[in-house]
Amino acid sequence: CFITCMQTVTLIPGDGIGPEISTAVMKIFEAAQAPIQWEERNVTAIKGPGGKWVIPPDAKESMDRNKMGLKGPLKTPIAAGHPSMNLLLRKTFDLYSNVRPCVSIEGYKTPYTDVNLVTIRENTEGEYSGIEHVIVDGVVQSIKLITEQASQRIAEYAFEYARNNKRTSVTAVHKANIMRMSDGLFLRKCREAAERNKDIKFTEMYLDTVCLNMVQDPTQFDILVMPNLYGDILSDLCAGLIGGLGVTPSGNIGTNGVAIFESVHGTAPDIAGKDMANPTALLLSAVMMLRHMGLHDHAKRIETACFDTIRDKKVLTGDLGGKSKCSEFTEAICQRVRDL
Amino acid sequence: CFITCMQTVTLIPGDGIGPEISTAVMKIFEAAQAPIQWEERNVTAIKGPGGKWVIPPDAKESMDRNKMGLKGPLKTPIAAGHPSMNLLLRKTFDLYSNVRPCVSIEGYKTPYTDVNLVTIRENTEGEYSGIEHVIVDGVVQSIKLITEQASQRIAEYAFEYARNNKRTSVTAVHKANIMRMSDGLFLRKCREAAERNKDIKFTEMYLDTVCLNMVQDPTQFDILVMPNLYGDILSDLCAGLIGGLGVTPSGNIGTNGVAIFESVHGTAPDIAGKDMANPTALLLSAVMMLRHMGLHDHAKRIETACFDTIRDKKVLTGDLGGKSKCSEFTEAICQRVRDL
Ligand SMILES: CC(C)[C@H](C(=O)O)[C@@H](O)C(=O)O
Ligand SMILES: CC(C)[C@H](C(=O)O)[C@@H](O)C(=O)O
Repeated sequence: CFITCMQTVTLIPGDGIGPEISTAVMKIFEAAQAPIQWEERNVTAIKGPGGKWVIPPDAKESMDRNKMGLKGPLKTPIAAGHPSMNLLLRKTFDLYSNVRPCVSIEGYKTPYTDVNLVTIRENTEGEYSGIEHVIVDGVVQSIKLITEQASQRIAEYAFEYARNNKRTSVTAVHKANIMRMSDGLFLRKCREAAERNKDIKFTEMYLDTVCLNMVQDPTQFDILVMPNLYGDILSDLCAGLIGGLGVTPSGNIGTNGVAIFESVHGTAPDIAGKDMANPTALLLSAVMMLRHMGLHDHAKRIETACFDTIRDKKVLTGDLGGKSKCSEFTEAICQRVRDL
Repeated sequence: CFITCMQTVTLIPGDGIGPEISTAVMKIFEAAQAPIQWEERNVTAIKGPGGKWVIPPDAKESMDRNKMGLKGPLKTPIAAGHPSMNLLLRKTFDLYSNVRPCVSIEGYKTPYTDVNLVTIRENTEGEYSGIEHVIVDGVVQSIKLITEQASQRIAEYAFEYARNNKRTSVTAVHKANIMRMSDGLFLRKCREAAERNKDIKFTEMYLDTVCLNMVQDPTQFDILVMPNLYGDILSDLCAGLIGGLGVTPSGNIGTNGVAIFESVHGTAPDIAGKDMANPTALLLSAVMMLRHMGLHDHAKRIETACFDTIRDKKVLTGDLGGKSKCSEFTEAICQRVRDL
């Protein structure tokens, strides 16, 4: 079945260190004999019909067909009016849910141990509506848009994710004491989803309280679900707890079965092309993708090989505290994958 | 001059543990011979003319006359439409700036050491405008309002505070990549203030990046200035870094010279009246107040006595890891104050 079971994934290597870390992931997948075939595409936006920025048609077509994507870091060109590539991709594929598991990595020291939580961020609306006005000179308003539909969708997704990943509790994060109508609507939809998913424990907590408790004891949290901006903040905060964006995977779940997994760190132009980059975040994102595709055995083996290599401390890239090249770190993981 | 130099401060003991910790502060101030005379007032909102909730006239009058207030925790009555007491006080006295110094306390262990930063939060507008609408069924908008005037006022305050407190750098925290007009306006006003205050270093950073960097290394930050909601989040996050709301002071600066200093923890009804509460947050808020009033010697002595008592570990309340009563902890501080 090996050949026939191959699934094709759109690979967006990205800019800066993107190509190097993508190569690393491909090598490790090969060593693990993961049944994945890559289709490389460039998504840098172009001006489409009507002058709107769009991603190139062949990249769009590839994603629409494969449904599954893996993406390295992208720089946003500074041409006037050029959109953030991240926002454009979210919009193009209706990637409504951003999922970030934050799990402490044994052997990589941070002030915290045993962090094991997942942030689930509504990715399409809220403070990111892009609607802003000048009311009178010196008075500006930005509109935060919350809809029943998007709130329900993300709330339901959080409970589904909990169940599928053998997690036991979902916490809705909000400021409904201040934004009574908008966060109130979001919270109501979470409560309703909780009613439909009684096997999962449900709690709700103010965002400020979550932040305070998070830095005091992150082990108290399991799954956190929240509107867009709160997710932007909390997902980065939680990444910080386990060692930063260089080791944090991320997945974006869209409608029609589309999903894009990505490293959320930058393009690191200063070290690009120097075989110094750390491929861990992209690799762990690819592992998330495998799990999402139901390929749990391959996911487990690659993940174990990666964590064992880090715990072992012998072959590490600079940012992880070692002196090895990206290719050496990659080879060390490949070796372990083959031995597992 | 002792009698004639006495200044009167409005004391709002508050609810729950409020009266106990207020008594503790008064005792310590007496031991320190701080030239402060207290005028106690209750601020629990009442229905004013026109059915609007207002704070009682005698409390308003006292604050207007004394300009200076110290406030314990307040519970918000659950009567329908009753406003948050915090929001009502901010509004009544135009308390536009919330200032929270977060400084590591020697001897009180947290995952971080050497934290020494101040969050300065715009306290009157932004996401707290209270303007919300249902657009159509299931679609709600909340309005974030940013004005030139309020942004300029808080930006200028941050630089002034830096200078008056011998600090060297101000970081503006924003999401102007997403809210280009509103956070853009806020950021522009910070940049302009930086131009007028070139003796203080100025940087700007995205809120998500600040959160990530904060949990990785809070010692890199000095003064942080930001819009309302971001301040709500970051001030609690930073309080968590140094041990929580039980040890974090807070000050609210208003127009016309009015200022209210307060502990930001809750009323802790479970331990109220049991002589178990920790008065540290209110005491350190009172110390901030003394500094604000120019009474630096008294401030220093009380602060030193408090920190020495905590470092010494012999007489501590339960939440600080000890077994002593509030009154014993208070007496230990008084003793040291007298000896200094
Ligand atoms: C790049 C930017 C648009 C983005 C955001 O604010 O969402 C980033 O911080 C993220 O979390 O992906
Ligand atoms: C009680 C609530 C209105 C308040 C806020 O959100 O501002 C609180 O969290 C604070 O920081 O004082």
